[in-house]
Amino acid sequence: MPTAAQISTVYQEIQQRIIDGLEAFEPSQKFKADTWEREGGGGGKSCVLTDGAVFEKAGVNFSHVYGTLPSIIQKEFGVKNGDFIATGVSLVLHPNNPHVPIVHMNIRYFEIPKENRYWFGGGIDLTPIYANKPQVKDFHKVLKSCCSKHHPDYYSTFKKWADDYFFIEHRNETRGVGGVFFDRLQEGDKYGLSKQEIFDFVQELGNSFLASYTPIVAANKDLPFTEHQNKWQLIRRGRYVEFNLVYDRGTHFGLKTNGRVESILMSLPKFASWEYNHQVETGSAEALTQACLVKGIDWV
Amino acid sequence: MPTAAQISTVYQEIQQRIIDGLEAFEPSQKFKADTWEREGGGGGKSCVLTDGAVFEKAGVNFSHVYGTLPSIIQKEFGVKNGDFIATGVSLVLHPNNPHVPIVHMNIRYFEIPKENRYWFGGGIDLTPIYANKPQVKDFHKVLKSCCSKHHPDYYSTFKKWADDYFFIEHRNETRGVGGVFFDRLQEGDKYGLSKQEIFDFVQELGNSFLASYTPIVAANKDLPFTEHQNKWQLIRRGRYVEFNLVYDRGTHFGLKTNGRVESILMSLPKFASWEYNHQVETGSAEALTQACLVKGIDWV
Repeated sequence: MPTAAQISTVYQEIQQRIIDGLEAFEPSQKFKADTWEREGGGGGKSCVLTDGAVFEKAGVNFSHVYGTLPSIIQKEFGVKNGDFIATGVSLVLHPNNPHVPIVHMNIRYFEIPKENRYWFGGGIDLTPIYANKPQVKDFHKVLKSCCSKHHPDYYSTFKKWADDYFFIEHRNETRGVGGVFFDRLQEGDKYGLSKQEIFDFVQELGNSFLASYTPIVAANKDLPFTEHQNKWQLIRRGRYVEFNLVYDRGTHFGLKTNGRVESILMSLPKFASWEYNHQVETGSAEALTQACLVKGIDWV
Repeated sequence: MPTAAQISTVYQEIQQRIIDGLEAFEPSQKFKADTWEREGGGGGKSCVLTDGAVFEKAGVNFSHVYGTLPSIIQKEFGVKNGDFIATGVSLVLHPNNPHVPIVHMNIRYFEIPKENRYWFGGGIDLTPIYANKPQVKDFHKVLKSCCSKHHPDYYSTFKKWADDYFFIEHRNETRGVGGVFFDRLQEGDKYGLSKQEIFDFVQELGNSFLASYTPIVAANKDLPFTEHQNKWQLIRRGRYVEFNLVYDRGTHFGLKTNGRVESILMSLPKFASWEYNHQVETGSAEALTQACLVKGIDWV
């Protein structure tokens, strides 16, 4: 049965593999790594690349933290004994070109040693500024293929979960075109996988990230774009900020557990914009993307 | 005793007076008014000016809404019967020039008719990009003078309240140099004012806004600024977004009561920026402002 330490080691390898894969798109820029310690236990390595050829701001974070869980989180999690271990990889990429989507990936493991409980969580989701439907389909296909190798219900359940989770309620729109999201996977849950089998799935999902996303980067990164398209990109990024600051549980968990603020908020774009009462033009490319920001689209 | 309808009328007049005062700085731009209705009861008038000579984005909102209070807010407010009336004026101004501070003002009135309860709330607070201490002092002096006419304890109590309220906990910094903030003022509270007297105070605060802020605008609006100063402005605006989306109770109240999203979020700047691990240079003008972003400075 994999231990927190083993899982943590594998997560670090996944972080490095992803960084290597992303640096392949950057002729002159490299990720800069900050190793940090958390007051109260543990630490992490935050890797950030800014002002690259492809990525305006890319953050790939690893953390392994432990200690006493704040009482507010204990309540939320239904935990009595507050000691916890949490380890994970989390990334958000904000490309320069509005034809390259924003993307997020996270894999995590949470354990309450004294209660002998643990669970895995994770997700990958795509936020196009201009939705290219065949590309969105391919993206979902990679996720489905990864999920289906491990459980026949994983993709359909986790796809719906992503629609529900990555949802900006006050805008009545999804953050993007979804992907997968899951939490609380553990031995004994309804899927019947062992801890090792769940870990195998989570690992494979982390390792599928590049395959799901980099083909889109390669295809779109050199497409020309206009000032108008750049403005729409800034507005979509504003919505991304709204989701992350108002709804994202990972962000709130990090801020409430006295996490490293710069690592938590490296998900925010370098530039974002809010225009009062912005409306897309009927029939425009922006309107076509907006129409994709709803729950329940079967992309595959 | 002033009724909700009377208060609402006075608030609308205050909104108009402020708009007139701000338009005096704009040679060619006017505020655009949107009148809107709220599903569930009431409505408002949102006035926005963008891309002006002085203001990049200025929103001055009036609303008068009523209906059934969502159960989550009932709990928060300790209210049993959910019918409510809420009316208020709320403004946030984002100037172009980094030498002109961001400012916020709000006056509000909340009533639960069937429980025969009501309260007033409000506040004004200043967020300089570059703190000019004599100007901050003058700003606080106007607020103190207004408060002190109505109760000897108002300024000191509400000044401290603003320090505590306009606080970005995860950054361990105040949003700006404070001002005043208060809530739940009502006849029978420890200050001993009648409803009419409290309303007089709130009115005068609303009417003091221009006197507290426009002298700073007049003095600074034509100061030259550099690209470096503009970058710092975008970062400070990012912090403003963090406060409003993570902590601001008015924003959450609006979003949870199915308020008009565009009116609630017109407080967000046209442009904002997040740089990973941004640090101010020791001894710089930015560091001097950062040093002002703490609680408990006695400006007057």
